[in-house]
Amino acid sequence: MLGVCYYPEHWPENMWARDAQRMRDLGLSYVRIGEFAWGRVEKSEGAFTWEWMDRAIDTLGTAGLKVVLGTPTATPPKWLCEKYPDILPVDIETGLRRGFGSRRHYDFSSKTYLAQAERISAAMAQRYGSHPYVAGWQTDNELCCHDTTLSASPAARDAFRLWCAKRYGTIDALNDAWGNVFWSMEYDSFDQIDLPFFTVCETNPAHRLAFRRFASDQVVRFHDVMIAAIRAHAGKEQWVTHNIIPPATTGVDNAALTQGLDFVSYDNYPLGFSDQLMAKAPAADWQPFMRTGHPDLAALNFDTVRGLSKGAWWVMEQQPGPVNWAPHNPRPAPGMIRHWSLQAFAHGAACVAYFRWRQVPFAQEQMHAGLLRPDDHPSPAWPEVEQVAREMAQLGDLSEAAAKAPVALLVDTASAFVDDIERQGAGYRYPAVVFQYYCALRALGVDVDILSAGQASLAGYRLIVAPTLAMPDDAVMQRLRASDGLLFFGPRSGAKTQEFSISEGLPPGPLREFVPAKIIAVETLRPDCTELLNYQGECFTSGRWRETIEVDEAEIIASYEDGSPAAIRSGRTTYVATLTDDAFLKSLLVRLCAEADIAVTPLPSTLRLRRRGGMTFAFNLAAEPVHVPAPDGANFILGGQLVEPFGVSVWR
Amino acid sequence: MLGVCYYPEHWPENMWARDAQRMRDLGLSYVRIGEFAWGRVEKSEGAFTWEWMDRAIDTLGTAGLKVVLGTPTATPPKWLCEKYPDILPVDIETGLRRGFGSRRHYDFSSKTYLAQAERISAAMAQRYGSHPYVAGWQTDNELCCHDTTLSASPAARDAFRLWCAKRYGTIDALNDAWGNVFWSMEYDSFDQIDLPFFTVCETNPAHRLAFRRFASDQVVRFHDVMIAAIRAHAGKEQWVTHNIIPPATTGVDNAALTQGLDFVSYDNYPLGFSDQLMAKAPAADWQPFMRTGHPDLAALNFDTVRGLSKGAWWVMEQQPGPVNWAPHNPRPAPGMIRHWSLQAFAHGAACVAYFRWRQVPFAQEQMHAGLLRPDDHPSPAWPEVEQVAREMAQLGDLSEAAAKAPVALLVDTASAFVDDIERQGAGYRYPAVVFQYYCALRALGVDVDILSAGQASLAGYRLIVAPTLAMPDDAVMQRLRASDGLLFFGPRSGAKTQEFSISEGLPPGPLREFVPAKIIAVETLRPDCTELLNYQGECFTSGRWRETIEVDEAEIIASYEDGSPAAIRSGRTTYVATLTDDAFLKSLLVRLCAEADIAVTPLPSTLRLRRRGGMTFAFNLAAEPVHVPAPDGANFILGGQLVEPFGVSVWR
Amino acid sequence: MLGVCYYPEHWPENMWARDAQRMRDLGLSYVRIGEFAWGRVEKSEGAFTWEWMDRAIDTLGTAGLKVVLGTPTATPPKWLCEKYPDILPVDIETGLRRGFGSRRHYDFSSKTYLAQAERISAAMAQRYGSHPYVAGWQTDNELCCHDTTLSASPAARDAFRLWCAKRYGTIDALNDAWGNVFWSMEYDSFDQIDLPFFTVCETNPAHRLAFRRFASDQVVRFHDVMIAAIRAHAGKEQWVTHNIIPPATTGVDNAALTQGLDFVSYDNYPLGFSDQLMAKAPAADWQPFMRTGHPDLAALNFDTVRGLSKGAWWVMEQQPGPVNWAPHNPRPAPGMIRHWSLQAFAHGAACVAYFRWRQVPFAQEQMHAGLLRPDDHPSPAWPEVEQVAREMAQLGDLSEAAAKAPVALLVDTASAFVDDIERQGAGYRYPAVVFQYYCALRALGVDVDILSAGQASLAGYRLIVAPTLAMPDDAVMQRLRASDGLLFFGPRSGAKTQEFSISEGLPPGPLREFVPAKIIAVETLRPDCTELLNYQGECFTSGRWRETIEVDEAEIIASYEDGSPAAIRSGRTTYVATLTDDAFLKSLLVRLCAEADIAVTPLPSTLRLRRRGGMTFAFNLAAEPVHVPAPDGANFILGGQLVEPFGVSVWR
Repeated sequence: MLGVCYYPEHWPENMWARDAQRMRDLGLSYVRIGEFAWGRVEKSEGAFTWEWMDRAIDTLGTAGLKVVLGTPTATPPKWLCEKYPDILPVDIETGLRRGFGSRRHYDFSSKTYLAQAERISAAMAQRYGSHPYVAGWQTDNELCCHDTTLSASPAARDAFRLWCAKRYGTIDALNDAWGNVFWSMEYDSFDQIDLPFFTVCETNPAHRLAFRRFASDQVVRFHDVMIAAIRAHAGKEQWVTHNIIPPATTGVDNAALTQGLDFVSYDNYPLGFSDQLMAKAPAADWQPFMRTGHPDLAALNFDTVRGLSKGAWWVMEQQPGPVNWAPHNPRPAPGMIRHWSLQAFAHGAACVAYFRWRQVPFAQEQMHAGLLRPDDHPSPAWPEVEQVAREMAQLGDLSEAAAKAPVALLVDTASAFVDDIERQGAGYRYPAVVFQYYCALRALGVDVDILSAGQASLAGYRLIVAPTLAMPDDAVMQRLRASDGLLFFGPRSGAKTQEFSISEGLPPGPLREFVPAKIIAVETLRPDCTELLNYQGECFTSGRWRETIEVDEAEIIASYEDGSPAAIRSGRTTYVATLTDDAFLKSLLVRLCAEADIAVTPLPSTLRLRRRGGMTFAFNLAAEPVHVPAPDGANFILGGQLVEPFGVSVWR
Repeated sequence: MLGVCYYPEHWPENMWARDAQRMRDLGLSYVRIGEFAWGRVEKSEGAFTWEWMDRAIDTLGTAGLKVVLGTPTATPPKWLCEKYPDILPVDIETGLRRGFGSRRHYDFSSKTYLAQAERISAAMAQRYGSHPYVAGWQTDNELCCHDTTLSASPAARDAFRLWCAKRYGTIDALNDAWGNVFWSMEYDSFDQIDLPFFTVCETNPAHRLAFRRFASDQVVRFHDVMIAAIRAHAGKEQWVTHNIIPPATTGVDNAALTQGLDFVSYDNYPLGFSDQLMAKAPAADWQPFMRTGHPDLAALNFDTVRGLSKGAWWVMEQQPGPVNWAPHNPRPAPGMIRHWSLQAFAHGAACVAYFRWRQVPFAQEQMHAGLLRPDDHPSPAWPEVEQVAREMAQLGDLSEAAAKAPVALLVDTASAFVDDIERQGAGYRYPAVVFQYYCALRALGVDVDILSAGQASLAGYRLIVAPTLAMPDDAVMQRLRASDGLLFFGPRSGAKTQEFSISEGLPPGPLREFVPAKIIAVETLRPDCTELLNYQGECFTSGRWRETIEVDEAEIIASYEDGSPAAIRSGRTTYVATLTDDAFLKSLLVRLCAEADIAVTPLPSTLRLRRRGGMTFAFNLAAEPVHVPAPDGANFILGGQLVEPFGVSVWR
Repeated sequence: MLGVCYYPEHWPENMWARDAQRMRDLGLSYVRIGEFAWGRVEKSEGAFTWEWMDRAIDTLGTAGLKVVLGTPTATPPKWLCEKYPDILPVDIETGLRRGFGSRRHYDFSSKTYLAQAERISAAMAQRYGSHPYVAGWQTDNELCCHDTTLSASPAARDAFRLWCAKRYGTIDALNDAWGNVFWSMEYDSFDQIDLPFFTVCETNPAHRLAFRRFASDQVVRFHDVMIAAIRAHAGKEQWVTHNIIPPATTGVDNAALTQGLDFVSYDNYPLGFSDQLMAKAPAADWQPFMRTGHPDLAALNFDTVRGLSKGAWWVMEQQPGPVNWAPHNPRPAPGMIRHWSLQAFAHGAACVAYFRWRQVPFAQEQMHAGLLRPDDHPSPAWPEVEQVAREMAQLGDLSEAAAKAPVALLVDTASAFVDDIERQGAGYRYPAVVFQYYCALRALGVDVDILSAGQASLAGYRLIVAPTLAMPDDAVMQRLRASDGLLFFGPRSGAKTQEFSISEGLPPGPLREFVPAKIIAVETLRPDCTELLNYQGECFTSGRWRETIEVDEAEIIASYEDGSPAAIRSGRTTYVATLTDDAFLKSLLVRLCAEADIAVTPLPSTLRLRRRGGMTFAFNLAAEPVHVPAPDGANFILGGQLVEPFGVSVWR
């Protein structure tokens, strides 16, 4: 299914009906509205003006569209900010209030805002909870975007103290857990705890971990209240979703954040995110992808969101042309709108909605393309969407969830927190490590499920890869024990206890159950200072993060320049104690896949594969046509053996 | 004429007479004093101590010098800051008050300061308005320097609200104009409007544009009050000027700022500004110019100031040796003080005054050279000034304004605001685009007038070049219509309405009258990722900013790699839809000049030409002698066919 | 002697006795404790809990260890911060209070904190001043670390005003001294003086110099009060020391700071400091040293601390493995713990204490190695310390101070202040200039004493090198006059008066007594834009800082590209007016050493020499063995002619 994001309040009412008809004609089924419209539905506290929204929904529904209704809590109006100034967050760098004038200007710890946001969400759900044209709900918008997870407000401080009291019970327990004896950091009461900002040097990592967990909990609590407010009034057939930003950038436990939803949606902006990702890449590396995006970045987020969604998921916002917010904003290469849409479906999406219907000529996003130009003519994306609409029919029913992949890639918020808090080496960044592992698997043509380590069952996966599992808790350990695939852990796994100490008996701590070794030292190196890594008689490189390991009974499968172990194998488990080059990762993964009976298809950097519903999708990111690795006698549903530039072929 | 900047208050009174005599002996006519002396002429409110200044003026005047008197409003003394703390501005990054201890510590929106500054200006004008030795006045000093145009003070906020009320009349009109329906940004009253700082993400560009216009108006209003205070008491023969910093760096409408002046002055520091401009240039590119400055940078500012001045203009401060404020401060190459002085005259200056008479051994500027060393001996600049004084006689009368150039380069504050506010691509910076176009013209040996788009008549120009004219208003449109030369617009022209929306019917909006096309998409690229541009069968490069254009009836004169139009010609108008390499610009300009019957002289990077009063000046920036492109039989007034290193030749 | 840093409060009491025994068994003599334990010895004001510390000291002493007791003033506990919030410093960038939660959260100008810190120091000294196991005291910990010298607090402002009143007597005298007539900066009273922060542009350098001197005085005063509080109660045989950070980074007058101590200690972290020092070095330059540290960096600090200590000195904290605070934290190369230990002894240390006994698994420093791993097993450093303990016996008694070196390198705080305050060229950094000169001498195999210019006698030095002596006062001048060695001054020497004006009669001001020349101009260049320097018929390079000199009667020994003088010789004095490449410095130093009859041994970059007690130590930083330049028949005490990778040879 296809959809679009629409802002009736931005356009004269006499344009609505024609817009709705054109949406239908284009082959769209869903239209999302409302998520920034608070100022237009409530003019002052309690003074609701739903009528225009009634008419908008009726117009859209009458035309045959299903409406996704966004609750407008991402943009509290000015009157609300003036009446309740304590809703505003405080910048953690400057200590200044972050004021009205853009969006997301609210503090997740403000009780006032929680109540107000619950009130408007409930009011909207009351009005439209049984509306026949409203298919479902989107909570808020892009939670945590613009670095809003953390706030240095008095509200956050007070809530954090309560959170600590609840978690630790007594201040002595907290002091013990955090190791506050160090540097005389012990507290006498919970009321003495400050936020971990504005100190002379770094605060206790356990303090920062607690604050990050707290902040995550605050966002989840806020979101859960919003979901509940909607569900309290919404019809049973109305679902609730949220459009998440790239999960690695929320700074919260995304599994918890999305748990209460019917499914998860994702806002897909491949070019801008790739421009940021590859900002320091040489031009020769970046230029081939500047109009397609990095070949694995959208896929990474698709697979992550599918994992969070536990089934079908949506692209709620699909970039339809140049955007406005990256340092550089190229136009997508011809065909890429279709390419990205089909890619989302291949990775399990049930619906792709484009953002936005018509480019708005005013305000912050006026340089963000739409399906229509500001002058109401179709933009270059239009015919591509027409093509996708036609091709959906050829692909058949895509409403069921994608099948399980052979490989599970485990990610977790804790590992990200560990990295953010303990920057032991500037060359180690958890998201980059995850991405390197993911890219290696994707370059081998393997389908991957990305799972939150603490949440998902690992049963049935033939290969389970954890690029880093820094702080595995009991729940994770149980899942690992219950798994039956090959296990592959990257460095820093098992590094920390739940309260940010070095693991009992040294890392990998509890993972020693699988990895019979001790990490007796860690060193970090400048990324440009790599060293040799010996594996299977070949030379690769090791760098950035290097652990010295004391091995009990395990096979040493790779070694450092000085002959000491760099990777070991014990039973079904492989542990690699260092970051490496891509070549080593691929070489090792090829062997593990062979062992796990997972078919591997080494691919050039501009070709990617993904399977769904018995079909294999091949995505060509090159400006040249390329032959796809389809078997003889493949039945092509879209395209053929030779896939056009930026094109897609699909076969059974 | 020549002059110098002098601070009698810095030196023992018994040195004054000798100083004055030496100034005369050196050939100087003017001496500027007083612009930082508030603390010495008013010891507490109303307690004036003019007597020393009386004596200083008498001493200078008696020696035959004409005095330029600076009003001291750039440095309110400590007693004033303590008595009226609301005069201090607020930093827009930190929210902190910017305090006493340097200079320019006042808020353009402070009513208190406006009154105090008017009071001291009037008092000074009353005392010296009929003084026979006082030839004229300089208002304040380097308005807007040190990023002082914008302030986040309560005074600025309150004044901005009033400004908005005046401009928009009703809050609904403002909401409509800004598109505040977006993100629920609508206000209920003008009292709700905050300054566009300290928000979560970017504010409405229309909001920021309004604030930039307001801030510009505040500076202009302040300056106009200062001018009026002087004129109210000054003799009719006393003129009023202001020493402007590089106009592109004021952040205000320079045409409005300077409108009330008799003429405009400029402070010329070629080395420091070039060090900043070329900070990221490779050493091989920078080293040839580190002691001369960029060959076109001083010229750009000279031509800009001449345009603002609408006739003769002054260099009020000419760098006489190394300065103290750039990241690196080389000494000028031998001869460059003379070179820059003659260059100013060639570009239309009536007077060049050196900053400063004697290097002061204390306080902030002790490492800034003077004509005299701190030990009272002549600095290396001294004999060069002696030479200039001699050569002035040979050049004849330079009091009349320079003749109109064949080419007009249009600049405007609005285009700079658009760029500052909407950073659609990191590779597009309006001042750099203007500079690239200017350099291309100068490298062809063509004289250029730089005009404020909204102010100057375009009649008589054979070629009118607007590197970007982002937001042309009715006044600009009228001038364009009334012009009769060839028109050449660069990309982003006509991009926005007056309230920062995308132009009606797509860009170039009103310019479609000249450019029969629509800009249907914009993309921005990393500067190191260029692509081919086809023009006249040759390959050039396009990058940074690229527009997709839909052409009505026009000739396509250049095209992108994919064959789509990149530059078009219609009637007398050329539109180039992308930023390009220098070679393309020069190639195109050579053709347009030929068509417009403008003589072109392609020059090496170290040679520049400029004509004035029937004379042609050739400036050699190389460390080697070079032959100048003088016609056979040229009558050399200074130098000859072979111009010495860093030298100047002048011929008729 | 060897020692270790230990935190009994971090470990269960039942581990203490075994720890103590193992320390003795390892060959350690000293154990430092207590310096962060305030929270554990005083639970609220006056509620002391010394008993655990009594037991810890008894346990250690009983095992045969001597205790060094640290006063815990670097970490005021939370109850104290709450009771006396005025003790907290204020950040000079943000204006925000720097709060509790890490360490060093106190303001040197807080009278409250001064009294509290004196109180706890006295209380501890009272309790342990006659304890037989307590050998001595360490004041505070790493004073000035984490940029704590400067604070923008009201306490600092008030104290600064009093300091100014005391120094200048009358406000007119201050105005005159600072040159406040410039920019109307004159004050009417001392109460008007603000801290030199948060202004529009730069403040008067004299103002900033006064503030830097004041801040230095505040730290010294604080420290002197601490020393006095200890001495008032400590036994006569108990000494007092302080563990200083790299002296160039304190921002205070280190000679004054350490004057009241019995000897000075240094915390030696070669890898982290080298990673920072060489952060921008190409990988090829950095990689050979990433596990050894820069070959001259630890030595520089050793020699500096020996100069401050006026005799024997200690390493109080020696890095025993990877640390946790640098951007990258490699493990030391095998043998480097021994290497660094022996290096400290060669440079005059009396004791080397390792930081820390056992790696602590919690809080901020959990990734900082110890002699023991967190699991209580020996870390890789352990056997190296065992080796050092054995070798100490072979080296004999090292308790007497190291002999005077033939070369004195003069450093001074004033030159550092001048550089910090007047950034005339981004390529001139005083610490880098000192380091370049030091490295040149060390690469010639020459022993160097580093002396505070204003404090130490220069008698007996055959060569006295001052890389820059920017602001020599009468005391320095007297010492220079009283010296009898060759003098060698680098550029910027004699640049400023004591109140930050250009020196009387131009630089080198008072040094003209030795350097018969005037610096008539200074230019600064981009570091990558060097020019030729002619010396002895060979070509070297000059750059970054270049002075034009007018020479009276002196020999010109090097000249710039244009033939003007770049270095001169007069009597026993050499003046080099520019920064140069290393090759020139070495070439000149070889000649000066020859003239001064100082033996020179040019060394490769990975080999360094140092003499002590009749022994020559050779340090190999290479991963290859190397032949040492020992004379025939040398008597090897450690190692031999061929020194192993990262090894040390010692001969008589």
